[in-house]
Order: sequence, then C-alpha cells, then structure tokens
Amino acid sequence: MNVGLLGLGTVGGGTLTVLRRNAAEITRRAGREIRVTMAAVRDLDKAKMYAAPDLKLIDDAYAIVDNPEIDIVVEMIGGESPAKELILRAIENGKHVVTANKALIANHGTEIFAAAQRKGVMVAFEAAVAGGIPIIKAIREGLTANRIEWIAGIINGTTNFILTEMRDKGADFADVLKEAQRLGYAEADPTFDVEGVDAAHKLTIMSAIAFGIPMQFDKAYMEGITKLTGDDVRYAEQLGYRIKLLGITKRTKNGIELRVHPALIPARRLIANVDGAMNAILVKGDAVGVTMYYGAGAGAEPTASSVVADLVDVTRMHTADPHSRVPHLAFQPDTLSDEPILAMDDVRTAYYLRLRAFDKPGVLADVTRILADLDISIDAMVQKEPHEGQELVDIVILTHTCLEKNVNAAMVKIEALSAISEPVARIRLEELAK
Amino acid sequence: MNVGLLGLGTVGGGTLTVLRRNAAEITRRAGREIRVTMAAVRDLDKAKMYAAPDLKLIDDAYAIVDNPEIDIVVEMIGGESPAKELILRAIENGKHVVTANKALIANHGTEIFAAAQRKGVMVAFEAAVAGGIPIIKAIREGLTANRIEWIAGIINGTTNFILTEMRDKGADFADVLKEAQRLGYAEADPTFDVEGVDAAHKLTIMSAIAFGIPMQFDKAYMEGITKLTGDDVRYAEQLGYRIKLLGITKRTKNGIELRVHPALIPARRLIANVDGAMNAILVKGDAVGVTMYYGAGAGAEPTASSVVADLVDVTRMHTADPHSRVPHLAFQPDTLSDEPILAMDDVRTAYYLRLRAFDKPGVLADVTRILADLDISIDAMVQKEPHEGQELVDIVILTHTCLEKNVNAAMVKIEALSAISEPVARIRLEELAK
Repeated sequence: MNVGLLGLGTVGGGTLTVLRRNAAEITRRAGREIRVTMAAVRDLDKAKMYAAPDLKLIDDAYAIVDNPEIDIVVEMIGGESPAKELILRAIENGKHVVTANKALIANHGTEIFAAAQRKGVMVAFEAAVAGGIPIIKAIREGLTANRIEWIAGIINGTTNFILTEMRDKGADFADVLKEAQRLGYAEADPTFDVEGVDAAHKLTIMSAIAFGIPMQFDKAYMEGITKLTGDDVRYAEQLGYRIKLLGITKRTKNGIELRVHPALIPARRLIANVDGAMNAILVKGDAVGVTMYYGAGAGAEPTASSVVADLVDVTRMHTADPHSRVPHLAFQPDTLSDEPILAMDDVRTAYYLRLRAFDKPGVLADVTRILADLDISIDAMVQKEPHEGQELVDIVILTHTCLEKNVNAAMVKIEALSAISEPVARIRLEELAK
Repeated sequence: MNVGLLGLGTVGGGTLTVLRRNAAEITRRAGREIRVTMAAVRDLDKAKMYAAPDLKLIDDAYAIVDNPEIDIVVEMIGGESPAKELILRAIENGKHVVTANKALIANHGTEIFAAAQRKGVMVAFEAAVAGGIPIIKAIREGLTANRIEWIAGIINGTTNFILTEMRDKGADFADVLKEAQRLGYAEADPTFDVEGVDAAHKLTIMSAIAFGIPMQFDKAYMEGITKLTGDDVRYAEQLGYRIKLLGITKRTKNGIELRVHPALIPARRLIANVDGAMNAILVKGDAVGVTMYYGAGAGAEPTASSVVADLVDVTRMHTADPHSRVPHLAFQPDTLSDEPILAMDDVRTAYYLRLRAFDKPGVLADVTRILADLDISIDAMVQKEPHEGQELVDIVILTHTCLEKNVNAAMVKIEALSAISEPVARIRLEELAK
C-alpha cells in the first residue's frame, strides 16, 4: 500500500517519525509494509528534515490525490478548506482516506461518508477524537454489544490544564490562560478551546457513532470556561466536587442530548482526578456498565499513534467487501436513526448556582420560593462568609435534577431581586454514575 | 451466521440475554443477524429459562462442534478440559471460535492459534481479559503504531475489592476475605484469585499480544495478597502510596518481565484510585505514552459485552482473506519473537521493606550496612512508634530501583540479625510513570 501525506506539520511530522522508527514492529503486526511515498507540504524548505530517497516531497496536494499509484491519502492539513475538497477528490479517485480533522468530520462527515460509501472506500478518523486514545475503535467495535446510554468526557487538554491550574493555584481564568499560552498549552487565539468548540467537534463525532445518527455539530450546545471564577472552583471543592469542562451526549426518551459545558463532578469519581492536559472519556453501555479510556488527547506522537493505527486498519480491510467493513458511523448507513438532538432548554440535569447578595433578611426566603415555584428542589444551600471588608455574601445552592428551562427562568427572577448584586453563576452538576 | 453456545452459566446466560435484548441494535451495527441456534448445557432442566422456539437446547457439546450448520462456536464452559478438546474439534471442523477462557488461552493459546491458523479460522478471546474492557482490541489494533514498553494492570476484581476494604476498614486480609465471600465477591475456594493465578492468566495473554511472543504462563511469577497486613496497608498510606495487586509485563534489554504481585503505587496516580471490584490497565507505548482502560472486569453482562463484540468482529472478518485479519497474537505468526521471559531474580524495581525489631541500639546501622553492601540504596527510612505495650518497633524502608536477587539476599541477612523478630515484609513499589 502506497501512502501519500497531506501536510507535514505537528501531526504529519509525528506520523512520519513513528512510521519510520517503528517500521519493523508495524510490519510484524500488519503483515505488510506501509510505504509513505509522497508528502505534500506548503513550504518545501521547511520539510527538508524529512527528506529521504523513497519519499517524494512536493508542494501540490492535488498531485497526491490525483496520483494513481497512491492507495491511501492521509489528510493532516486541518481546517475545512481545502481539506474537504482534497478528501472528496481522493475518494472520487477511489482512494482510502485517513484524517485527523475533527472540525471537518463534525461538520461534513455525513457528506464525506456518503461519498466514500458510493465509491466503496474507507475514511478513518481515530485521530480526530482524543488524540492517541483509541476511543473510536472502543465505541464502534469494542462495545458493539451495547446499547450506549451516555458518553461524558474531558476531551480538550487546554481547558483541562487551565482548570487544573485554577484549582491548584486558586487563580482566576484570565491569569491561568496567560500562563498556559506562555507554556504552549494554549494557542495565541484560544477561542476554539476555551469556548468549547473543539470539544463539541469531538463530542459530535462520538455522539454519531454511539447512537447511529448523522453528524449534527450545528445542534451542539457549547459553553466555555471563560466565566469561571476562582471562587466557584473553591466552593465546588469545599462541597466535594471538581469542575471540569465536559462533553456530554446522552440518549433520553425525548431525544439526544449534545452539550459541552463546565460541570461539577463528585471528587471521588476517577474522571474528576484526570488532571493537566490529559483526556478521559466515560462510556456507559447497558451491558458493560461504565468504562473509561484515558490518555494524551493531543501532541505529535499520540495523534500519530491513532493515524498509524488507522493506516494498519485500512490496509487490513482493503481487501474485505465494503459491506463487511466496520461502518463509518458504527451503524450500517441505511439504518441511521433520526432521533432528534434536544434543545438545551429541554435537558434535565442538576445545578450549582452561586448568588452574590447583600446580606439582608428575606433573601433566602425569596430565592427558595422562586426555585420551589419552578419545580427546582434544593439538595444543599450554603451561605459563605462575606469576603473581607465587603458587605456582599455568596450563597451557593446545589439543586436536584430539574429542567434547564426552569433554571433559566429562575435565574431571571433571582437576578431581579433587589438584594442580588450581580448575575447568578450557574454551573451544571453531573453525577456520572448509573 | 449460526452460533452455538457451549455453556449457559453466568457468562453464557449473560451472552444470550444481551444478544436477545439488543438484537435490533446489534443488527444495525453488524449489518446482519447473529443467530444463536444451539446451546449445550449440563443440566437441561436448569436451562429452561432460556428456552425459545429458534434455540435448540441440548446436553451434548459435541453435537454443536460437529454440526455443519454452526459457523461460530462460543466456548463458555471454562477450565482446561473438555474446553480444549471441544475448541480444537470445532477448529478442525472449520468453525470460528469465541472464548472467555483465560486459563485455556494462557496455557494452550499457542497450540490453539496454530490449529486455527492451519484451518484459516479465527479464535477471539476479548472476554478472557478484564471482562467488558476492550483491552485486547486496544492493544492489538488501537495501539499498532507503538512499540509497547510495559503494561501494568489491576486485573482481578476479587483482590482489588479485598485491598480496598483492608484500606477503608484498617482490617487484615483474613477478616476481609470472609466478608468478600459472604458478599459473593470471592469464591468459596479463593486460591486462584488471592494467589494471583487468575491475574497471571490475563497478564500472560496481554504480554503475548503486546510483545509478539508465545503464551508462557509457566514462566509467570505469581505472589498473592494473603500475607499483607493491615499495618503494611496503613504504613503505605502514610507514605503516600496505595497497595494494589498488579500484573506487570515489561520489555527490558535482557528480556521480558512477567510478574503478578502486590505493589505500592503513588496514591496520586489515577490507577491507585481504582477501587472495589473494578479493573484498570495501563499501557505504555513509545508513541502514545501512557493510556488507561477502566471498567468492570467480571460479571455476566460485562463479560457478555466482550463475547458479543467478538461475535460481531468474527462475523465481519469471516469473508476477509486470513492474512488480512488481525493476527491472534497481534503480530503475524511467522514473526513471533523468542525474547526470553526474565527470571524474577533478574527483575529490577523498587521495594518497601518492613522490619519488626527489638528497639536496640545498632539495628539501623546493621540494616543499612547490609543494604549498602548489596547495592541497595535507600530512598526513605522511617521508624514507627511501638505498638502499645510492646517492645517491638516497625522499621519501614523504601529503596530506589535495585535487583530483586540482591533484595532477597539482603532479607536473608537482615532476618539473621538477633534484633529482628520475624521475617521481613517485602512489597514491591512501582512508580508507573515514564
């Protein structure tokens, strides 16, 4: 099998490095050589470090996707264009595709898989979700016996690094972000990471393969970590919780939840102890119960680990009849389900609410009445000591499971109370068990 | 594909239940129906609960392995005989085999796979290791890019339950074992679990697929948890460690380590926090780094989850040419390596040593001299307060990495000191990082 790489950046370079270093081991496993014969790069000068007699370096990606001698195209350019056009052209030319491009798969996966289906080729994308963790394979093949009930994961290393630092140092978001940027854990423009977009891309992909639904990134709810304060992190800790940015997708009787937001998790849960830039994903199946998958969610060689595993898989399945291959979306294309994605208003979960109030009599009575009127039952309520020299006190409320739209309505009413000094801080709370 | 089940006990019954309950979901994934048409049971009366018009219940297992209409035989009898004979006969008859039998695979896997190879059929055994966790698939397919460096796992639920209780309740082994037996977490004869035999079966299988070596259960080092005391668990905790029964297999320049024994693990490691009857496995690959896989390691439906996943895999790969299938031992049969399994004497790790001594001057000097003479360097040494009303004190020593045979020699010399009142307690210490 001849392989052509599109892009030799972090992931592309890592892929070439791993394929070269472990060539003997990989051949022992795959039973045949995986030969990278071409690589397309933007800057031929920069790519000189990868030069080798058996590798043709070029600056025209179309010369790879149109080359009849190439069997598998590995797309590691990222972004939507020209990655999408190149992949569709490769498929049109009868080539298999391996990609690490989560934005592309989450937004255009359904179209790409349909094209691949028509041509009888494979599109593999293990590296698009959670870097080196073989989570796509686990859900799609390891757990085929199960009706998947929910998936919840820490699937963005940047935000997990920031949240870990906020907890360890008692610092606020903005200060830790600067430190993370200095250390290379966050990009100069961190929007995709800190606003939950990157996590939502990965979650959309997992949701599709868990439930057998089309990719529906446009319906994902996204809330980032930019508004979290050191106070909330500390209060959560005092109540026995950790705050993590979670991607959650869950099958309910009304539809499928698809949401990324910060969440309180009981500190005793294993996943609450996943720190730094690491990723971890919980999958709940009806037969197996909860399983967890942990590892590096990014980085050159961890991501290359998944790209190369896909290359071996595609090489092995190349000769199989297309119907016998593992379906792209885990379920046979003609059996995809049209279960709706739930609007965030219709999601049910528990909540942490933090109110900042002037310490006047009657505030608690007003707040509890508002909550009761909206069917929101209180699990715990704590009035914190006022910050030194301030007349404001923080009131922290944990609710039982209730309807998101009722919590939204309650927040509006609470914020209208004269004793309340600023918007209510609301963080969802996930038990992640049962 | 017509499937015949051998055995309808815990795992067999669970498999049938899951296949029936999730039939629609499984067919949506596999693209074809998986029909269980026959099941062999010892007691037809007991199996009545599983009766159905499309299932033939019989008490002769050979009537299944010899039936030309059966495509896949699922062996869930356990033990070595007649399971081995039945599986070999099924293979001889050209049938694929799925098995949950770890003792059989660890002891006779090499012979069974060779027979399967000759006949061009598949033998799948995901359920033999760590119940519902798809760890075989992860190592064999998910991490193909990697040179695996080591695997370390909590792969026996009974002992992990006992160790968790010992820590939580400060109790000794014997008391907790009784409680575990009462709750059904331990068998009436717990030998295989508490002496590390069950863990060594699973470890042997993982070692073979990680390193591409034949199954060599006879060379596995096994040490159980029966000698652990509440004192050791408590001292470990005070030093920042947890005690777990670990299965460890590691590639070194001299050979492969294959060992099951209790070990101190830094309490901050995620795997140190895997409690109760749960399993977790760390896999270190050179490209991906450390990944971890967590879930239920036993039980009817978790194990059935893996059996059914294997059924779907075998169904999918049925039409592939045998050379393109995933090799049984992860590496192509003609590339298996003859790297030796290291004798335990030649293993290098760190150690916790607990000495019980009469509180006399000069003891510490004698002990430290013995250790220094044998190239054992001390990381920490703590003399504990004497137990109330006793003249004996405990001395706890943590060593840096050193050679097992030197530690054995040191223990003999230390025990010969007149101030030492009883055998040295020795527990290995594993950092589980890098």
